[in-house]
Amino acid sequence: MIIILKPNITEEQIQHIEDRIKKLGLKPVLSKGIERSLIGVIGEEDKLRITPLEAIEGVEKVMAVLKPYKLASRDFKRESSVIEIKNVKVGGKSLAIIAGPCSVESIDLLSKVGHLIKESGANILRGGAFKPRTSPYSFQGLKYLKEVGLKEDLPIVTEVMNIKQIAMVDKYADAFQIGARNMQNFDLLKEVGKTKKPVVLKRGMSATIKDLLMSAEYILSEGNMNVILCERGIRTFEDATRNTLDLSAVAVIKQLSHLPVIVDPSHATGKWELVAPMSLAAIAAGCDGLMIEVHTNPEEALSDGSQSLKPKKFDELMKMTKKIAEAVGRSV
Amino acid sequence: MIIILKPNITEEQIQHIEDRIKKLGLKPVLSKGIERSLIGVIGEEDKLRITPLEAIEGVEKVMAVLKPYKLASRDFKRESSVIEIKNVKVGGKSLAIIAGPCSVESIDLLSKVGHLIKESGANILRGGAFKPRTSPYSFQGLKYLKEVGLKEDLPIVTEVMNIKQIAMVDKYADAFQIGARNMQNFDLLKEVGKTKKPVVLKRGMSATIKDLLMSAEYILSEGNMNVILCERGIRTFEDATRNTLDLSAVAVIKQLSHLPVIVDPSHATGKWELVAPMSLAAIAAGCDGLMIEVHTNPEEALSDGSQSLKPKKFDELMKMTKKIAEAVGRSV
Amino acid sequence: MIIILKPNITEEQIQHIEDRIKKLGLKPVLSKGIERSLIGVIGEEDKLRITPLEAIEGVEKVMAVLKPYKLASRDFKRESSVIEIKNVKVGGKSLAIIAGPCSVESIDLLSKVGHLIKESGANILRGGAFKPRTSPYSFQGLKYLKEVGLKEDLPIVTEVMNIKQIAMVDKYADAFQIGARNMQNFDLLKEVGKTKKPVVLKRGMSATIKDLLMSAEYILSEGNMNVILCERGIRTFEDATRNTLDLSAVAVIKQLSHLPVIVDPSHATGKWELVAPMSLAAIAAGCDGLMIEVHTNPEEALSDGSQSLKPKKFDELMKMTKKIAEAVGRSV
Amino acid sequence: MIIILKPNITEEQIQHIEDRIKKLGLKPVLSKGIERSLIGVIGEEDKLRITPLEAIEGVEKVMAVLKPYKLASRDFKRESSVIEIKNVKVGGKSLAIIAGPCSVESIDLLSKVGHLIKESGANILRGGAFKPRTSPYSFQGLKYLKEVGLKEDLPIVTEVMNIKQIAMVDKYADAFQIGARNMQNFDLLKEVGKTKKPVVLKRGMSATIKDLLMSAEYILSEGNMNVILCERGIRTFEDATRNTLDLSAVAVIKQLSHLPVIVDPSHATGKWELVAPMSLAAIAAGCDGLMIEVHTNPEEALSDGSQSLKPKKFDELMKMTKKIAEAVGRSV
Repeated sequence: MIIILKPNITEEQIQHIEDRIKKLGLKPVLSKGIERSLIGVIGEEDKLRITPLEAIEGVEKVMAVLKPYKLASRDFKRESSVIEIKNVKVGGKSLAIIAGPCSVESIDLLSKVGHLIKESGANILRGGAFKPRTSPYSFQGLKYLKEVGLKEDLPIVTEVMNIKQIAMVDKYADAFQIGARNMQNFDLLKEVGKTKKPVVLKRGMSATIKDLLMSAEYILSEGNMNVILCERGIRTFEDATRNTLDLSAVAVIKQLSHLPVIVDPSHATGKWELVAPMSLAAIAAGCDGLMIEVHTNPEEALSDGSQSLKPKKFDELMKMTKKIAEAVGRSV
Repeated sequence: MIIILKPNITEEQIQHIEDRIKKLGLKPVLSKGIERSLIGVIGEEDKLRITPLEAIEGVEKVMAVLKPYKLASRDFKRESSVIEIKNVKVGGKSLAIIAGPCSVESIDLLSKVGHLIKESGANILRGGAFKPRTSPYSFQGLKYLKEVGLKEDLPIVTEVMNIKQIAMVDKYADAFQIGARNMQNFDLLKEVGKTKKPVVLKRGMSATIKDLLMSAEYILSEGNMNVILCERGIRTFEDATRNTLDLSAVAVIKQLSHLPVIVDPSHATGKWELVAPMSLAAIAAGCDGLMIEVHTNPEEALSDGSQSLKPKKFDELMKMTKKIAEAVGRSV
Repeated sequence: MIIILKPNITEEQIQHIEDRIKKLGLKPVLSKGIERSLIGVIGEEDKLRITPLEAIEGVEKVMAVLKPYKLASRDFKRESSVIEIKNVKVGGKSLAIIAGPCSVESIDLLSKVGHLIKESGANILRGGAFKPRTSPYSFQGLKYLKEVGLKEDLPIVTEVMNIKQIAMVDKYADAFQIGARNMQNFDLLKEVGKTKKPVVLKRGMSATIKDLLMSAEYILSEGNMNVILCERGIRTFEDATRNTLDLSAVAVIKQLSHLPVIVDPSHATGKWELVAPMSLAAIAAGCDGLMIEVHTNPEEALSDGSQSLKPKKFDELMKMTKKIAEAVGRSV
Repeated sequence: MIIILKPNITEEQIQHIEDRIKKLGLKPVLSKGIERSLIGVIGEEDKLRITPLEAIEGVEKVMAVLKPYKLASRDFKRESSVIEIKNVKVGGKSLAIIAGPCSVESIDLLSKVGHLIKESGANILRGGAFKPRTSPYSFQGLKYLKEVGLKEDLPIVTEVMNIKQIAMVDKYADAFQIGARNMQNFDLLKEVGKTKKPVVLKRGMSATIKDLLMSAEYILSEGNMNVILCERGIRTFEDATRNTLDLSAVAVIKQLSHLPVIVDPSHATGKWELVAPMSLAAIAAGCDGLMIEVHTNPEEALSDGSQSLKPKKFDELMKMTKKIAEAVGRSV
């Protein structure tokens, strides 16, 4: 950590800062410059995080040398992680294709969609069992997911929205999903971190890549190393799409972290017509999988109909993804 | 609601859209134009919200005529609402000044800060009892808040972070605070909506004003009309401040809604030097109160030290706020 | 155009609005609703653009039915436009690969880079002749571009930064480039619109897709239909990349407009390591070409070195682009 | 400048970086750490700006210790600058109130508006003479401005949009205005920097505060120290206002720079109803003046009618500004 001092700082103020650093068991190294002096801090940077050095008078700016996450970093683990959702590997050569309806509206819908996506080549089933706009008890979402998952031999992923749901979801699902709005729900992150189950962690719509990796760190530091990151669009001034899908994030994350990263073009764009081109682009950018909404009758979907693909369109898309995947040395 | 049709729409597709509208008990009115035709929908617009009309082929765009919130709207209630937190009125001529430390770190800190802010003119005490970075059980935050609140005769506001905390917070606090990260935690909104206690609802950092009012609607529609909105900065590309304080939002909300609106310059800017000018600006913009972090020793604060005012600075600020408040016909 | 009226509008105010519409040769159609009344306007919407109807009392909102651009729209021309830069077609099956150094620093640099990119498969040469940070007269950028372009049989594209440069650039270059900062320099747009030469129009970093198409309209409406749009990143809160490359924009533009669209991953990301994955993603998303910075010695480049590819890396990228292009039915 | 090295950097790469630094006449100081090593650079940081060190292999990040501007900085000049536009001081105790129509549509409009704003207390007249949407030659904007300015004894400010206009505007106007879209038109900045006339430099809508100060530096470094900064809103996802007025920028600029800063609430909000509250807030935040659009008949304005105040509303606002100014120790 480097502390840049204000030009008019007094000797007393410098002394005070050095004292604080020493009290933390760290070593300050003062470097006097013509226009600015600075103090380098030697030792474990973590200790400094809890003390707001910027609140001290005479300090102009504090610059971190190390990244604010460790276990999620590629410095910590050079080779890319491969995470298994039941029998499906995420992060290896083969891509994870997670598909299904936004909400588990009925067993009938889920059975149909589950069967069709499997035929088209998807390898994981998704579906929201606790969507806020639907009653969680009326259609027994989790049981249906389990039932269809077993029948079609597809592992299932479903969102867990608060701590109370963890035990139940753990019983039925093969992986947890943490939604964009809960990306910084640190209690929830810690609790899923205490399980062994894979966690698909979606990027919050105003979260930087660094924020996302810091959220992953909360899960990892509890001992659960099975984190899969998911880019799903950020909020910008552009309103032609619901959010702006940040595909550079895929390449940036691959540099910074060993964790697999998948892309959700359905929520990012909010428009079914854009799902296919953005899926292909995501694979070309180097992602490890896709998460796509599929519905047999989007115009009657209880939620997010406008972004759902019909099974026929999904099937066409899957054919395209195979070609792109091969072009970048992957497979579907 | 107005449905704009694609130029190449077929008669069959138009028929299909009209049928769907009629099925919902609404009346479609087709209006053929040279470049675009459109269908106006007459009846209760609410019915249309559940059907994703944009998923229907031939539909170019759906434009809402009515706002997506009702009870929060000034159309619903012309006169501005005045909400009472214990004996303090929020939304009237007098401004609410909510102050206190970010976290309730100790009874000692809270007692000192509580006493000093009261002397300077604050009328409500705040403090986080469940900060994620601190252990909720080690210092009994809620009890301390209650104790100091009674001693200094200050109503207290504290954040409730999940449903499980509601009952306990309800017992100790005079108002709930919903944090920016929970602004769209709809379950939480509904649950505080079932109580009678005032709710300070903070704007999410990627939430539009419309989003904020829609979140307020969730609370209002459960029967709790005591909602106070809080502007606390939005995420933008500007990084000189932690977030960009959107003071126009104060004036916009005053036009759109009858609910009181307060401003939190501490979290918005993240820097104590900016708290004073932004507090004054917020009052001049027409807000109904301020929420300010005060700490006796910011450089040792467990959280957010860099944005906390020392009691002396807070006292100076309070003197200034009185002048500005008078200039706009208010009082502190 | 649809004018939504405030709930408390008076009959007199309605009359006033209707009168203004009639004066413009348009027909107002009043439609009274329970919660809101509205006025539909029949006739050429263009006439209304010059009158700020939202300034009239009693008007709540004005909603456009038509898009604010016409010639750029796919409604105006269904089939995609193919634009020729000398002998290179942009917008057809084959992709345009525009490459070269950020600035034309010397004839030596340009000759080397020009030769190597041609060998790797690029078909258009780019280079800034008037970079603000360099002296425009010291190295005769335009002549060098022409010379190398002829030698390597590559058409050349270069930026024109103000009206005074148009005539000179027109003499030497095969296509104009309008930079992101000039996207709304309407005088400049109109002037290049009066030439016949292709124009590569870059999206401003705070411009929506609609803004970009409206800027294209300025050029088109002067009679020059040879406009190529270029996505190059927008400014967001994410700071891991210089800008956020908005690849959804490619797919959105393909829906809204017949104009070709290319992508500049060098300026968007600002980092050479991200250029390759983003180039591949752009092709998969459906773009008609790429614009890539190449420099033989990036660490000594006079500008933008950190985002320039070395010729060897560019060559590797070209091999990859061929595979991706084929996967989506295109060619390089 | 501090160069953070990648963990896997080789001795050779370190040597290469040190050599480059020495070649520039600077001194590298290597500091080896456990997790990261870094190189501090001693000497004039300016020399490093032209070499893109981030392009060198083994470099992870380059962090600047000094700000990228110098003359604009408060380090360079501690006391606040006061700049005179003819006889009006900007930056002193008294506030500059710049008002007038968006475009100089006619001598009649300008005379009326000029007279009324003067009566209400404005001290500078503004008006666009070269608005893109109007013909610059048909109404002789500059002459009219001069004429009305003399008659009402108001200095005049008008926008200069390209280099060609500088000489002419210099002849007629008392201060140049550089519009938001030209904030990074470096040629234009340098040219007005060669005159002695005050320059009102508007912040670009996607420019950070740092960007704005760097643009000011271009003018200052040519010898013209009379720069007045103008906050006029930045582009964000919020669409209730045209742009998001960033009033924190006023307070931040006051810390970082000695230059005066004014605020334009008309362009920022795009809505006349918001101009008054935002004007008052701007003064409370510590700005040195306001720039406000006034039009006698906004609904017939050739541009920006929806954001123009009628003279009566402007008069009411001026009465309010006096009160707020007094409350913060200023005057109007």
